[in-house]
Amino acid sequence: MLIINTGNAKGKTTAAIGQIIRSLGHKNRVCLIQLFKGENFYGEQKILAKLENFDFFSYAKEHPFCIKGITVEEVSKQCREAVEKVKELANSDKKYDLIVLDEFNIALRDKFIDENEFTEIIKNLAQKFDIVITGRNVPDNLIEIADLVTEMKEIKHPYRNGVKARAGIEF
Amino acid sequence: MLIINTGNAKGKTTAAIGQIIRSLGHKNRVCLIQLFKGENFYGEQKILAKLENFDFFSYAKEHPFCIKGITVEEVSKQCREAVEKVKELANSDKKYDLIVLDEFNIALRDKFIDENEFTEIIKNLAQKFDIVITGRNVPDNLIEIADLVTEMKEIKHPYRNGVKARAGIEF
Repeated sequence: MLIINTGNAKGKTTAAIGQIIRSLGHKNRVCLIQLFKGENFYGEQKILAKLENFDFFSYAKEHPFCIKGITVEEVSKQCREAVEKVKELANSDKKYDLIVLDEFNIALRDKFIDENEFTEIIKNLAQKFDIVITGRNVPDNLIEIADLVTEMKEIKHPYRNGVKARAGIEF
Repeated sequence: MLIINTGNAKGKTTAAIGQIIRSLGHKNRVCLIQLFKGENFYGEQKILAKLENFDFFSYAKEHPFCIKGITVEEVSKQCREAVEKVKELANSDKKYDLIVLDEFNIALRDKFIDENEFTEIIKNLAQKFDIVITGRNVPDNLIEIADLVTEMKEIKHPYRNGVKARAGIEF
């Protein structure tokens, strides 16, 4: 089954993290592959690292549009490595029940990942595993092959009133 | 800060669970009060129970519109007990950083909880703590006092194709 969390509002990654916790609670095996978030910045990374039956891979630790000094070429290379890891999972004997691909929609939007190739890989993977893909601006091709798509839609947001991101809330 | 996860799609509770995990990762103290979900059915309950700095309270373990043999009176009484617990937190010395009130919007919608009284309590509580309230059909009064409201909007859902709820995904 392919699940997609998209939209412009808060909740896409936290819902995926909640899904991981739910799945681990049923003694499932879970893999998280994350883009643009490093390995030790977000609160959830610290808790997840301690849990059993959970594997975590981090690629392209920063987004070139946010952090200066990182080239689009470097990030594209790292995103391709992430896709290679996804392919590896598709063919591995490791029996994951749930695979979460966090912020991959962003890598697709920004052309760091080839959309057609990725869609084909996911189509195969979703036959064998439950997959969650997050990130705003999901391409139509992924919606097409998805089973469940939730749009996190902003009704009200404090950034509009100048509130800054805080530990435990936004990261 | 008051955060609300509402809407008709999947992701409201899982996003709240992800928020709890994120917050715990920053060594915050977190309290979850849940309605209509029992104590040992959802996968996340099993993982959360093992984590430090986390308190969990469950009230009104089933919803009378779902399970026969439970009266509206009983459930209303238990929901009022849950509100008493929320009030207790508002006045306690326990220093929670995040309080999650899962499915309270449902209890408001179904008049198990008095909307005006609850809104006043939350208004006070949100001055001292970060609060997350989940559930579809959030009342306008809560949106009014909220800082951040996300609508989880259904774009595509497998139930429409007759797929049943599965462990690790829906519970």
